[in-house]
Amino acid sequence: MVRLQQQMEYIREIDKLKKVLRQSLLMDASRQENDAEHSWHLAMMAVLLQEYANEPLTDVPRILKMLLIHDIVEIDAGDTFAYDEMGHLDKRVREEQAANRIFGLLPEDQRDELLALWEEFESESTAESRYAASIDRLQPLLHNYHTEGAAWRRHGVKSSQVLKRISKLKDSVPELYEYAAGLIHDAVAKGYLAE
Amino acid sequence: MVRLQQQMEYIREIDKLKKVLRQSLLMDASRQENDAEHSWHLAMMAVLLQEYANEPLTDVPRILKMLLIHDIVEIDAGDTFAYDEMGHLDKRVREEQAANRIFGLLPEDQRDELLALWEEFESESTAESRYAASIDRLQPLLHNYHTEGAAWRRHGVKSSQVLKRISKLKDSVPELYEYAAGLIHDAVAKGYLAE
Repeated sequence: MVRLQQQMEYIREIDKLKKVLRQSLLMDASRQENDAEHSWHLAMMAVLLQEYANEPLTDVPRILKMLLIHDIVEIDAGDTFAYDEMGHLDKRVREEQAANRIFGLLPEDQRDELLALWEEFESESTAESRYAASIDRLQPLLHNYHTEGAAWRRHGVKSSQVLKRISKLKDSVPELYEYAAGLIHDAVAKGYLAE
Repeated sequence: MVRLQQQMEYIREIDKLKKVLRQSLLMDASRQENDAEHSWHLAMMAVLLQEYANEPLTDVPRILKMLLIHDIVEIDAGDTFAYDEMGHLDKRVREEQAANRIFGLLPEDQRDELLALWEEFESESTAESRYAASIDRLQPLLHNYHTEGAAWRRHGVKSSQVLKRISKLKDSVPELYEYAAGLIHDAVAKGYLAE
């Protein structure tokens, strides 16, 4: 029963991800999105958009698991906005400590599995993690576009920054890169995003 | 590009799941949980608790996909509280219409896949769907227990009703059933749940 208690402690702890707010607003602009619902949305997108991956994806469960856990470290480390350069300086250290604490609630074998998945996602060392990371770049762009650039305008983000941020989609999911670049172009034309 | 447009339309539409509120409160009792973050939590639990399944689970991605989509029909049909007997009378009809509309936004092959997964989850016709459904019964119990029975007390739910609701865990995940029954017993002793 110690093992089950550890698993239940982790399951209880990660409920806090539902309270970590992101800069993105929901598509209807009613409120900020949280990390738990964001992770759900990414997993759903990853299921549906596999056909656009430029490399063979042999292990779909690993993609889904990576997306389910990729933001859990933010329970301790907080959400660092994509365009916050200062916040990124110590991001890695803060997130490693968080990963050790939170995944460390689990039995050793599961802790090791989730730590390895989180490392894989962060390092983008495999086709699966590159695909997962691309989906994680695409989703906030959709939210920004459909909220008329709410988070972009609030933070004075420029189109060159957004283009740079999605540049990794070019190799990993080229058709989705074209789609995303089209949205950015359109967002500039509509005044949602600064040139 | 029609195909990608259809996929993107679906991805945009399901953002509304983040606004479908459940009766369960978050573990810190600060607000009601929504269906999107609930679905994320279930998928994470399903990854970690497979060892308790009484039947071999051969297709993990199918379990995760079922849990990611199982509540999407509630965008149209709303959340029917587990102990609302009147609400359950026309639940199936409302949910079928919703499934046809929402999954119908997708290209035909993906619509068919998600409709089949939703049907499988609803009918509990496979080991994977029985396991997924058990996780979906367990999670609200954890939320109720850790919020001192908030939703139970609000709706005057009795321990016999909760026991009946989790009875399917007995065959599907027997150790989790024992754990859940223990929580119910303890909840009664602590006054969170009526005898």
